[in-house]
Amino acid sequence: METANPKQDYLFKQVYDYVLNRIERNEWKKDEKLPSVRSLANQLNVHRLTVLKAYQLLKDHNKVYVKDKSGYFVMSERTMNPDLIDLPMVSAYDHKNHLSDIHQHHVQYNFSQALIDPNLLPNQFLSEYVKKVFDVHPKVLATYSTVQGDEELRETLAHYFVQQYKTPLHKDELLITSGSQQAIHLISQAFIKPRDTVLFERPSYSAAIDVFRARGANIITTDITQNGYDLDLLEKQMQLYKPRLFYLNPTFHNPTGITIPSEQRKKLVDLAEKYKCLLIEDDAYHDIYFDQAPPPPIYTYDTAGIVIYVRSFCKYISPGLRVASIICQSKATIKSLLSSKSLIDNGSPLLNQKIFLHYFSSLRLQQHLEKLRIALQIRKEIMEVELAATNWKWESPKGGLNLWIKLPDGVSAQEFYLTALKDGISFVPGAVCDPLKQATSWVRLSYSYVSEKKIREGIRKLIEVMDQL
Amino acid sequence: METANPKQDYLFKQVYDYVLNRIERNEWKKDEKLPSVRSLANQLNVHRLTVLKAYQLLKDHNKVYVKDKSGYFVMSERTMNPDLIDLPMVSAYDHKNHLSDIHQHHVQYNFSQALIDPNLLPNQFLSEYVKKVFDVHPKVLATYSTVQGDEELRETLAHYFVQQYKTPLHKDELLITSGSQQAIHLISQAFIKPRDTVLFERPSYSAAIDVFRARGANIITTDITQNGYDLDLLEKQMQLYKPRLFYLNPTFHNPTGITIPSEQRKKLVDLAEKYKCLLIEDDAYHDIYFDQAPPPPIYTYDTAGIVIYVRSFCKYISPGLRVASIICQSKATIKSLLSSKSLIDNGSPLLNQKIFLHYFSSLRLQQHLEKLRIALQIRKEIMEVELAATNWKWESPKGGLNLWIKLPDGVSAQEFYLTALKDGISFVPGAVCDPLKQATSWVRLSYSYVSEKKIREGIRKLIEVMDQL
Repeated sequence: METANPKQDYLFKQVYDYVLNRIERNEWKKDEKLPSVRSLANQLNVHRLTVLKAYQLLKDHNKVYVKDKSGYFVMSERTMNPDLIDLPMVSAYDHKNHLSDIHQHHVQYNFSQALIDPNLLPNQFLSEYVKKVFDVHPKVLATYSTVQGDEELRETLAHYFVQQYKTPLHKDELLITSGSQQAIHLISQAFIKPRDTVLFERPSYSAAIDVFRARGANIITTDITQNGYDLDLLEKQMQLYKPRLFYLNPTFHNPTGITIPSEQRKKLVDLAEKYKCLLIEDDAYHDIYFDQAPPPPIYTYDTAGIVIYVRSFCKYISPGLRVASIICQSKATIKSLLSSKSLIDNGSPLLNQKIFLHYFSSLRLQQHLEKLRIALQIRKEIMEVELAATNWKWESPKGGLNLWIKLPDGVSAQEFYLTALKDGISFVPGAVCDPLKQATSWVRLSYSYVSEKKIREGIRKLIEVMDQL
Repeated sequence: METANPKQDYLFKQVYDYVLNRIERNEWKKDEKLPSVRSLANQLNVHRLTVLKAYQLLKDHNKVYVKDKSGYFVMSERTMNPDLIDLPMVSAYDHKNHLSDIHQHHVQYNFSQALIDPNLLPNQFLSEYVKKVFDVHPKVLATYSTVQGDEELRETLAHYFVQQYKTPLHKDELLITSGSQQAIHLISQAFIKPRDTVLFERPSYSAAIDVFRARGANIITTDITQNGYDLDLLEKQMQLYKPRLFYLNPTFHNPTGITIPSEQRKKLVDLAEKYKCLLIEDDAYHDIYFDQAPPPPIYTYDTAGIVIYVRSFCKYISPGLRVASIICQSKATIKSLLSSKSLIDNGSPLLNQKIFLHYFSSLRLQQHLEKLRIALQIRKEIMEVELAATNWKWESPKGGLNLWIKLPDGVSAQEFYLTALKDGISFVPGAVCDPLKQATSWVRLSYSYVSEKKIREGIRKLIEVMDQL
């Protein structure tokens, strides 16, 4: 991230976050006065300058304003634009999905979708499988799945995980959801109530941040760097803020591509157990590696049921199917998730699970993955070759679908984004991936969705856009 | 319901509900003292005897207990069973789906599922359609649907509704969800925050009650009778409690089978508009009528966007597809729903929408429905003939899938349910359909899921179970 020393800025960020969250949750209402610098400093046990610095930045970000000399006030639309009238219907919390808003735009060069180009997926083969599914299960459309998910699919997945990671797993420790997005939403429903504290990596996956924000959670952050986490800092955060859960993406992390090393994985589980902080391990890119396979998932180190593992395969087979799985060793956790799942949609469609099962059980999957890895690596390298002409900075990822790029100092990613959009190019401005909505000179470029030719063209155009800024 | 005069008992029920909701939401914590009878009576502006009566009934229902002479206290598991220890992980609110719990039991005679027997559904025909879908859309599995739902499907549905009800409807006023259950959950996410008041019919659809309970809503009720609603009472409730929304099921109501007459529909929309109370019109059984088609949906009287209409067709075509629609004329409402939908699952699977679309557009649907109505009417009549041997009471429904039956006085539906379950017969005890968890001598029997032969056998066995009680 922008700051060189994460520890130094740690308290300042937390104060900033603390205030921003209360404003966003409408706990501190629009045009209301914020606590005085002195009183908030006392309350949070930090230096007054730390609070002042946070308030100043909130002012710079148009979140608060100063009235005469009487203090800081929460910004309102009315203050920013006195002609505005209130909408009659408003949601309880901020229900915005920032990523989804970006994807509304139809563009010629789409570097914002961290999805795989449909041309790289086994469509023809899957169509054949679908016909088989109807032969084997003629009443599949007349039948509900159980809430937990098709038993045959859960058995197959459990067997697969046991083979892969040599740790025990029973089909009843597994739950099927309609995609990872639903899995994350489901977890937020089952375990978070408004004002609970939730820990996020910084940066992180935007749509997950938005889910917990919509749930009214108080979000705190810990940096993810090429060295992984600062575990001492993480322990302090768990001790001080008692987060209910830590949402993490430790393998080919979205957006940075970082993989947390094995030695940190074990320690993280110990910490989580000690502080009773659920680890939500989102593992969407596990099989998309270029060099060597990643270390085993964090859940394989778990013996106390403190890890909830979210694993999707559909992203690289058939995203349209919307089938993902959740794994947890705690019976109580699975039970809570099942209750919530039954309220959310009463179980995922059986047809989709059966289609996925038939493909997953076939030998085709591994063959498909081998080809897919090569195709994606080529696209990544093409993008990197084109970008070599710039002074932008990034660490070449060893897996996943994205480059996380630092633009030259002083360049606004948001301005860059809006200008590029006019030229038919989309990407994700860094602030969207930052729970604190900063990272203002970073961008995420996905190399997975467009063809090699279009990557070349699009990146060249993008560099031109930057040159004109 | 049990009480002859709903007006007389209205205040008492509200007090009961008021207290119970605070207990269930954990606002009044376990083993905490309730407000004194006098102070709550003052606070709610009711007679002290009304509060006392509510407290007594809460005591009978094991929700509160009396300690010496010091007052009423919130019941805890520890008080009921001192050996119990606390679970480490608990959900924020009550995330139970009572109906889903009942369906866990595998029984020989299933009268608890308000689903249509898979043998009555057009399975063979749909399998053929699926193959067509893959011919027309070879990349359907590689593609995400938009969050709002497939445009072609929305256009087709909008056209259908315009034809049917002669009121304007645009495809952008329509949103596709993964079944009605998700539609109800989605609405709870977008418009309800904890402690908002929500109005329900009494009795009502259990899984909807559970969704709003899980959201932390404060639930109040209004009776639905053969005459419809008491609109004067309803107006008072809207005035006094300012409910954010009214969840209603006005056509072949689940569980009672009642249809709200046309003249009340128009008035209801006026009331809702006056008191800014969203009407959530759940219309799951619209096409399942035996005699004549029901009046047009309430949404067709709406001009201000105060009605959110939830319509599913899949229940009687292919429940396994999980495709339903939400209609609302308010752009702001659709926008809020879309934001929440994108966080919940990022859009329903495209394949399922395309399969549904191809069947829905065909001429087969109306032919199928004509046959289905006859088959269900026969099953209903067989069940009624068998039940004629008892002194149980019910109003014969003119549509829908259920009989709502009053058992003889003094019979506990819960005890009856548990005994019948041992004999392999399931149904829904009335308390599950009652937001106040009373209706203790009522049961819901569904005639739609089991064959004619099994209805005869099962009901005879059920009567034997009752005779032995």
